[in-house]
Amino acid sequence: MKRIGVLTSGGDAPGMNAAIRAVARKAMFEGLEVVGIYHGYQGLIDGNMEVLNLGSVGDIIQRGGTKLYSARCPEFRTKEGQQKAIEQLKLNKIDGLVIIGGDGSYRGSMTLTNSGFPCVGIPGTIDNDIPGTDYTLGFDTALNTVIDCIDKIRDTATSHDRTFIIEVMGRDSGDLALWAGLAGGAETIIIPEETYNMEEVIGRLKSGSTRGKKHSIIIVAEGVMSGSEFAAKIKEHADIETRVSVLGHIQRGGSPTGRDRVLASLFGAKAVEVLLAGHGGRAIGIQNHQVVDYDMNEAFEKGEIMDSKMYQLSKELSI
Amino acid sequence: MKRIGVLTSGGDAPGMNAAIRAVARKAMFEGLEVVGIYHGYQGLIDGNMEVLNLGSVGDIIQRGGTKLYSARCPEFRTKEGQQKAIEQLKLNKIDGLVIIGGDGSYRGSMTLTNSGFPCVGIPGTIDNDIPGTDYTLGFDTALNTVIDCIDKIRDTATSHDRTFIIEVMGRDSGDLALWAGLAGGAETIIIPEETYNMEEVIGRLKSGSTRGKKHSIIIVAEGVMSGSEFAAKIKEHADIETRVSVLGHIQRGGSPTGRDRVLASLFGAKAVEVLLAGHGGRAIGIQNHQVVDYDMNEAFEKGEIMDSKMYQLSKELSI
Amino acid sequence: MKRIGVLTSGGDAPGMNAAIRAVARKAMFEGLEVVGIYHGYQGLIDGNMEVLNLGSVGDIIQRGGTKLYSARCPEFRTKEGQQKAIEQLKLNKIDGLVIIGGDGSYRGSMTLTNSGFPCVGIPGTIDNDIPGTDYTLGFDTALNTVIDCIDKIRDTATSHDRTFIIEVMGRDSGDLALWAGLAGGAETIIIPEETYNMEEVIGRLKSGSTRGKKHSIIIVAEGVMSGSEFAAKIKEHADIETRVSVLGHIQRGGSPTGRDRVLASLFGAKAVEVLLAGHGGRAIGIQNHQVVDYDMNEAFEKGEIMDSKMYQLSKELSI
Amino acid sequence: MKRIGVLTSGGDAPGMNAAIRAVARKAMFEGLEVVGIYHGYQGLIDGNMEVLNLGSVGDIIQRGGTKLYSARCPEFRTKEGQQKAIEQLKLNKIDGLVIIGGDGSYRGSMTLTNSGFPCVGIPGTIDNDIPGTDYTLGFDTALNTVIDCIDKIRDTATSHDRTFIIEVMGRDSGDLALWAGLAGGAETIIIPEETYNMEEVIGRLKSGSTRGKKHSIIIVAEGVMSGSEFAAKIKEHADIETRVSVLGHIQRGGSPTGRDRVLASLFGAKAVEVLLAGHGGRAIGIQNHQVVDYDMNEAFEKGEIMDSKMYQLSKELSI
Repeated sequence: MKRIGVLTSGGDAPGMNAAIRAVARKAMFEGLEVVGIYHGYQGLIDGNMEVLNLGSVGDIIQRGGTKLYSARCPEFRTKEGQQKAIEQLKLNKIDGLVIIGGDGSYRGSMTLTNSGFPCVGIPGTIDNDIPGTDYTLGFDTALNTVIDCIDKIRDTATSHDRTFIIEVMGRDSGDLALWAGLAGGAETIIIPEETYNMEEVIGRLKSGSTRGKKHSIIIVAEGVMSGSEFAAKIKEHADIETRVSVLGHIQRGGSPTGRDRVLASLFGAKAVEVLLAGHGGRAIGIQNHQVVDYDMNEAFEKGEIMDSKMYQLSKELSI
Repeated sequence: MKRIGVLTSGGDAPGMNAAIRAVARKAMFEGLEVVGIYHGYQGLIDGNMEVLNLGSVGDIIQRGGTKLYSARCPEFRTKEGQQKAIEQLKLNKIDGLVIIGGDGSYRGSMTLTNSGFPCVGIPGTIDNDIPGTDYTLGFDTALNTVIDCIDKIRDTATSHDRTFIIEVMGRDSGDLALWAGLAGGAETIIIPEETYNMEEVIGRLKSGSTRGKKHSIIIVAEGVMSGSEFAAKIKEHADIETRVSVLGHIQRGGSPTGRDRVLASLFGAKAVEVLLAGHGGRAIGIQNHQVVDYDMNEAFEKGEIMDSKMYQLSKELSI
Repeated sequence: MKRIGVLTSGGDAPGMNAAIRAVARKAMFEGLEVVGIYHGYQGLIDGNMEVLNLGSVGDIIQRGGTKLYSARCPEFRTKEGQQKAIEQLKLNKIDGLVIIGGDGSYRGSMTLTNSGFPCVGIPGTIDNDIPGTDYTLGFDTALNTVIDCIDKIRDTATSHDRTFIIEVMGRDSGDLALWAGLAGGAETIIIPEETYNMEEVIGRLKSGSTRGKKHSIIIVAEGVMSGSEFAAKIKEHADIETRVSVLGHIQRGGSPTGRDRVLASLFGAKAVEVLLAGHGGRAIGIQNHQVVDYDMNEAFEKGEIMDSKMYQLSKELSI
Repeated sequence: MKRIGVLTSGGDAPGMNAAIRAVARKAMFEGLEVVGIYHGYQGLIDGNMEVLNLGSVGDIIQRGGTKLYSARCPEFRTKEGQQKAIEQLKLNKIDGLVIIGGDGSYRGSMTLTNSGFPCVGIPGTIDNDIPGTDYTLGFDTALNTVIDCIDKIRDTATSHDRTFIIEVMGRDSGDLALWAGLAGGAETIIIPEETYNMEEVIGRLKSGSTRGKKHSIIIVAEGVMSGSEFAAKIKEHADIETRVSVLGHIQRGGSPTGRDRVLASLFGAKAVEVLLAGHGGRAIGIQNHQVVDYDMNEAFEKGEIMDSKMYQLSKELSI
């Protein structure tokens, strides 16, 4: 292993730049050359890449987004696309790859690993939905962005005795909604992993109002339904007016938090160590407070990873 | 003048608490008693009020929302409602009132002034749309909230080479959109005061893309049309895909900026001085860097207050 | 167990209010009465306390500081003080106590537990220095405050090619310095757990400068020496000018991060469960991603809890 | 005028990058070429400069610090240094210069203007101390940074019933201290423009304490004395313990606020217009809400520019 590549793929997440920096610096520390590949797998196919040096990853640890850009790449799902990628790896003498992205991005890398180019995945997505790691990169930053919005909306909700429905990201995973709802003091949290009972939702709104609460906040993960659909259901069910706020893409941006930067640093360094040890098809993660690597196939198994005790607690604390 | 009341009315704005504090503290400094009236004019009608002391406005200068709550009050637009309000003013021995809110809130106070209860208005709205003052309370904070969102969205827009349409508040006034667009480096700004040319909008998107720009940001004031309507128009016109982000109610919340806290302090103190001088039907504002009071009727005249040089500049700087 | 008390003691930390709320709400959910004790052990001695209800802990989850105030209390270290506290517990029919604070605060509670008033400790300190828990409440918020400062200082350091020494909190524990240094991209981190080598420090400054780095940032934990002492040593050793920034008390304040609010909620609920199960002399913590309770005496054992791999990594990534 | 140069000089200030962008974009819009000169006057002497294009000032409007770097330059105060600078201007065919910095930086430019190279100054300093402009670039951002710190310190001050002394920047000008103190709700503000009375300071501390205030905050501008000197005086005078926090260099950093970015855009565009009109020796500023240019010599006249009404008000509101 003399030269490795690094790319970011799929939806971007805060901390990706910090991970790129960690991969590059750790690799250089170990005497490797590092190539930054632009625009994810598309850049790999197109040979759109550049050798990185110490300075080219300087002053990026604090930046949102990804310096290497990201993209979804349908062409890479074809045999032809994969073949082009492999040829570029050969041409550029790249011996191994670090892929920063979600599980979709991991999948693409399996072909490369199986073709003799070991790949290691770093979980980069705000959704916290990759099996095998307790946290993904970007989740902590997105959590704080959502909480900042909830705090702002609470100001106006309180001033006007209003009920707000806040729609947050999360197609299959309710982690962001659950953590943000618990941390934001939301009265009700609606997530894909748990069925909701509209009677109970209405009951909580009414009992809060009875005891003089000045506002109510309901968090809905987009995977369940949109905020305005939920508002319509409440209106239909109990004739209660609500306001809807869709947080949208601001959740993906922003300077990464301390925790996301530390995770990115640990993940990036571990990925290089795993490649140096000659292993491919591995995913990096944090399990029980330890940075680990594990078989990438485990990341594709859909299991129950939501913490149902936290969900229960969110109900008890918002009485 | 021995005892004055203070209330917040209409949409809430950051800095209202700082203004309440300034009114209360300045009045006490001048030897007056101060009554805080809850929920705007509705609280006045209902006699929902409380005497304030130094401590009751402590630790609020930095808080968003309004400690006195706000509301719209249809009842106050009726003769009966106004009569009830006047009776409460007599009953509670309130000699004058400070109204913190938008021009709709100002209007309500004219009846009271004309009935012998002098009222003074403090401009509190994020829209910056009250004639007679260069700035309204809350505008600066909302500006920074919008900019923070633009900065976050730019991260993800850049990472993915995407065009974003960001819908910001402003029904009749484009100030928030214009300032935020200029400060956020937006390519295009669509505001009620200026007609837009779709050919030009498309032209800017294309020329930016040609010279390698990694993202495009279009700001649309809600008063022109919704973000998704504008996205549909672009799609129809030039088959360009865009993402839409509606910032919504977070724009009304948050801890006020330094400038809004200072304005609130100056406005609140001036309002008390005007009442002490025996004047009613006056609005407080800042004109050419000076805190002033002026005939409240001027605040109802719709004039051209947008800075068209700033609009022109925003085009020149985003080439 | 019918009625429990809660107090905050020692240095304040962000998240204490969220923990108070969680203790109170969880206890009420379980049918207990809750008494808030003001100013730590001093308030217990003085009988300065108040019954809490659902509303009295509303709208505090997002606030820095502690609504119950904190204090150090020398009187409580005396037999007489402890006796007074016990009498107040009897008088107010308090059956158990939740203590939120550092290990000094824990110590005080052992006497009460041993006298038949079971106490449970929640680790609240920004220092992250309590054995038995991977994280203390407030650490994550302080980390982000320090990082925000480093990011700001980096702006000016870069603009002027300067070396900055930033002194952060941490008497016996270097965790805050280490995490913040790693996340802030500091060139050098000086902590109590690791001896430093001045030749190496100077060497890093010089090699960074040689390869064109525009700034250097050195983080010093206050437990090692002050920032200005370290600056003097560098000056003496290599005649290099540095600027010193002492972050000071801002590290203790601010709205808690999402993670600190979630931790506070989990810790508070667990503390109530432990009391309800009839156990005293227990400390709450998070170990390997699980909320646990453990013998409070373990919290007094000074062990090596710093992560030396992270320290090593910080050197590798700042080459 | 075919080609202009732009440089930043003296202490850096947030918004300098936004001003560089505005100068460059406006100049290109007008058909001029633009040269960025690195490290202030030193770079001019050394010929350290580069032609800017649209892209090279992209994505910097939101960044703290200055992309062109800054420096103080003793050599430029000598005849020889100035001669070298003039030769570089000739060599690089630069017809005019925009200088972004404080009044010290303005002074240097007079020689160039007098030698036939018209210079225009943009006021860039957090101190707000340049005669002829109501605001300097960076002041608004620094104000919000200081307020954020005061808010954090208030959390811990309140929790512990403590008095804090906060030292802020400002050698000759108390504007930052005064605005931040008023906006932060400080009890006492000590600035160079106003003598203080220690009896009154102590009196305010005592009366606040008597009426149950949980904290006291005193703001001291560094130009009067250091925070710890002031603490010693209070200790000596009344035996009151205080804590000191020196905010230091974080006040110079950070992403510029909306207002600073708008000011930077307006100032930068105006500077180019003035150069295009063939004028040199002019300073740009904002006076009574209008962007203006004026004789640079007026910027060197030390006059009373502090708002003494605001100082008086700060006392009235903190009773």
